[in-house]
Amino acid sequence: MAISLSLSELASRIDGKIICGKAGSLFYGMASLDTAGPSDISFLGNEKYLPQFHATRAGSVIVPEGFEFKTDGPALIAVSNPSLGFAEVVRHFAVEPKPFTPGIHPGAHVAPTAKADPGKVCIHAGAVIMDDASIGEGTEISPNAVIQTGASIGKNCQIGANVTIREGCIIGDRVLIQPGAVIGSDGYGYEFSEGRHIKIDQVGIVEIGNDVEIGANTTIDRARFGKTIIGEGTKIDNLVQIAHNVVLGKHCLIVSQSGLAGSCRIEDHVIVAAQSGIAGHVVIGEKAILSARSGATTSLPGGITYSGKPALPMKEEVKLQAHVRRLPKMLARIKALEAALLKSSSTDL
Amino acid sequence: MAISLSLSELASRIDGKIICGKAGSLFYGMASLDTAGPSDISFLGNEKYLPQFHATRAGSVIVPEGFEFKTDGPALIAVSNPSLGFAEVVRHFAVEPKPFTPGIHPGAHVAPTAKADPGKVCIHAGAVIMDDASIGEGTEISPNAVIQTGASIGKNCQIGANVTIREGCIIGDRVLIQPGAVIGSDGYGYEFSEGRHIKIDQVGIVEIGNDVEIGANTTIDRARFGKTIIGEGTKIDNLVQIAHNVVLGKHCLIVSQSGLAGSCRIEDHVIVAAQSGIAGHVVIGEKAILSARSGATTSLPGGITYSGKPALPMKEEVKLQAHVRRLPKMLARIKALEAALLKSSSTDL
Amino acid sequence: MAISLSLSELASRIDGKIICGKAGSLFYGMASLDTAGPSDISFLGNEKYLPQFHATRAGSVIVPEGFEFKTDGPALIAVSNPSLGFAEVVRHFAVEPKPFTPGIHPGAHVAPTAKADPGKVCIHAGAVIMDDASIGEGTEISPNAVIQTGASIGKNCQIGANVTIREGCIIGDRVLIQPGAVIGSDGYGYEFSEGRHIKIDQVGIVEIGNDVEIGANTTIDRARFGKTIIGEGTKIDNLVQIAHNVVLGKHCLIVSQSGLAGSCRIEDHVIVAAQSGIAGHVVIGEKAILSARSGATTSLPGGITYSGKPALPMKEEVKLQAHVRRLPKMLARIKALEAALLKSSSTDL
Repeated sequence: MAISLSLSELASRIDGKIICGKAGSLFYGMASLDTAGPSDISFLGNEKYLPQFHATRAGSVIVPEGFEFKTDGPALIAVSNPSLGFAEVVRHFAVEPKPFTPGIHPGAHVAPTAKADPGKVCIHAGAVIMDDASIGEGTEISPNAVIQTGASIGKNCQIGANVTIREGCIIGDRVLIQPGAVIGSDGYGYEFSEGRHIKIDQVGIVEIGNDVEIGANTTIDRARFGKTIIGEGTKIDNLVQIAHNVVLGKHCLIVSQSGLAGSCRIEDHVIVAAQSGIAGHVVIGEKAILSARSGATTSLPGGITYSGKPALPMKEEVKLQAHVRRLPKMLARIKALEAALLKSSSTDL
Repeated sequence: MAISLSLSELASRIDGKIICGKAGSLFYGMASLDTAGPSDISFLGNEKYLPQFHATRAGSVIVPEGFEFKTDGPALIAVSNPSLGFAEVVRHFAVEPKPFTPGIHPGAHVAPTAKADPGKVCIHAGAVIMDDASIGEGTEISPNAVIQTGASIGKNCQIGANVTIREGCIIGDRVLIQPGAVIGSDGYGYEFSEGRHIKIDQVGIVEIGNDVEIGANTTIDRARFGKTIIGEGTKIDNLVQIAHNVVLGKHCLIVSQSGLAGSCRIEDHVIVAAQSGIAGHVVIGEKAILSARSGATTSLPGGITYSGKPALPMKEEVKLQAHVRRLPKMLARIKALEAALLKSSSTDL
Repeated sequence: MAISLSLSELASRIDGKIICGKAGSLFYGMASLDTAGPSDISFLGNEKYLPQFHATRAGSVIVPEGFEFKTDGPALIAVSNPSLGFAEVVRHFAVEPKPFTPGIHPGAHVAPTAKADPGKVCIHAGAVIMDDASIGEGTEISPNAVIQTGASIGKNCQIGANVTIREGCIIGDRVLIQPGAVIGSDGYGYEFSEGRHIKIDQVGIVEIGNDVEIGANTTIDRARFGKTIIGEGTKIDNLVQIAHNVVLGKHCLIVSQSGLAGSCRIEDHVIVAAQSGIAGHVVIGEKAILSARSGATTSLPGGITYSGKPALPMKEEVKLQAHVRRLPKMLARIKALEAALLKSSSTDL
């Protein structure tokens, strides 16, 4: 991690022009306009953050070219794209990713029948790799993660601490699983008989494609039979529930605390915003967007943005909600009509 | 796990009749109509899946007796109940459950004062059994699960990987806890004093009846005093929150991401569908059903299906929602009335 | 833990007066009126629980002074404040908190470069403390918790079983983290390029103030850069999601299954009730209260109670919902107007 950056080094690194401030001033970190202090670099990426800019305590701010100069504010550097410039600052201060160091910690528990080449994988203390599981080269298993019997992890994956991957599940390459996630828990299926719920065996697996990311404490159930499928490149946030036999397409985003019920099918490039729910057995078409807290109770065609529960095309739902807010006025108009009619009929008499 | 099944073996196993296909054709797996490939067996359990049947790539499909024969589709076998026939196929291909093998892995940490007979329990690597905890015979503790001081686990339970069961909690027999679940975390209770929230001690426990199942990453808080109770036979899905002092009846279903607030009481055979919430201290009567995303803010009589927030009997709620959808038309009618009245009064003049 | 308490001991301990029952009767536990049995002490803290009082099976009940005497009920002791009296009973029966016993269990994995004084910290079996992490004195790390590289834990903290604290995160003093919580998972941020979501590095940390409590299986993401901040004294319940760059104030309550989206800012003394959601980048003002299941889609001024989605001041939202329930009647009134108008215009003809 770099320790500091002078204003002139900053200007040269991001190909910007100092429009205010001393070339030798030193900065030690980076932060948003809201939270930056005098030793931090920040940026103004969008005019809507001007109030935050005027209130910022940042030592230096990256601003767009043509930005109006102010005498007593922070040091300013103008660039064509402040957001990209700031990304460069982030890289400067970022902890360099630790190089991958293969090895199996003596405190890890790797079953004799597991396939894990100590020269090519990294398995930390307390991790448990059970019988017949296999770990691909370049993959890191964090402390206390559990890879159960026969599970297969691809190459260059990062499996977080305290993650559980249950029996037989298949994980692709370059998959990133945040701590505490559970892959392959039993699907939730029972038959009701004589007043009791009898468990239906859940004998399938979960199969996760390449380049998938799975959030902290998210749960993905194994299929009743066959596979629960997470398509290549899909990114799942924290605390998401994915039930048995869901087929989730490629390059989808499933945002935090959403739930996908059993056997629903989500096509490619779908976005499900936070705290949404999708009913069992429905199909959500390609490139559909469900806004936050939507509840999809039926299949929905792709390419459209939905909201509400039941989820409707967003335009309709926004209009309905506007009508609801207008209800007190509607009631007043009905009363006025009633009064007018009463009056006109009395007049008639 | 069986490797393959020929069409004639399949027919004889499920007591069916080959109506299309070669007796010697081999199949290697099973899947739903949607996801099956040429080496898979599938089934048509319900006429509403006919479109999926016509599009299926399955090698063989189990169909109802009397189903109309088609020349160029998959191999077909007719039986009286395709769903039951398919369950037989699932059994054929399923991994045989591993026989229970008692023993304590040398990488497990069992406190000297814990009661766990190495000849009768199975404790995996990395599991931690703390002082005075007891593990019943036939029970399996998965890797890295933690059973804290004085907790008691019954017979023939399966405790998943990375599960935590805190001090003093009592788990019945044949209880199945999926990975990552937390039993006995502190209840959420504070007193507000001089601008700060002061923790109220949570000295009770959680008591879980026989034959309960608890989903992955679900959390059940210990009582402030006394017990949080989960009744016999109740099945709880993933990511459910059960607060302190909840009394949950027997044979209930609590579906994923639902939350039961402190001290609510759920009577027997209640179903709470996904993403629902139940307020603190209310009572939900026997055999009540809360549909997905309901919010019960008051006590609700049993035997009725509810929906919405606040939860209303479903019939009422559906009617209200239909009215909301009709709001634009209602507004148009009000406008028409206003125009007509204006016209009629001008006419009067 | 005390084993029993006689009625006379109880009376003297809570400075109460026996108004019914024998001085020598022994009681062995405590419970609410609903769940108490003949060997339990309970209390009547509020008149609204009179029905539960009349149905209780408790052996003894603490009642308010002036409470009317009944012959055949439980033993009764009158005090000025039954709730405080009962708190004293809770203290009597409570398990005495185990004294803090420093030491590092031989089954823990503490990296040589970690700072953890075996004479001043307590680290249980299976816990993993990675390089350069530091553990303050008086802090207890429960079994199978993972403290990753460079994380810093303050003094007198309790870190639950199976908790994960990722690289570089900073935890204050007297922080209580329930089992399974994840601190410092990657923020959820991607750039969309050529049909794929490309991960944006999340190089910041989480910083947690003194006296914070974090619930079981709650997840708090590290900042994209800078810090995700949890202010001093704030109490977070189970299964809560806190996204990257959230700034959460001091002495807030965030109740279970709520979600705070990226970069939102919650000022001091805010209460967010269960299953609520707060959108990204908004500001919730000091002492605002969001009732259960609120969805704050815009910034909200402090000091007001909100409800609904979008969250509105509770009074407005309650009024709107009342209008919705009145919709069938409004429709009937419109029909009546139409009929009347039709009649009056026919009359005109």
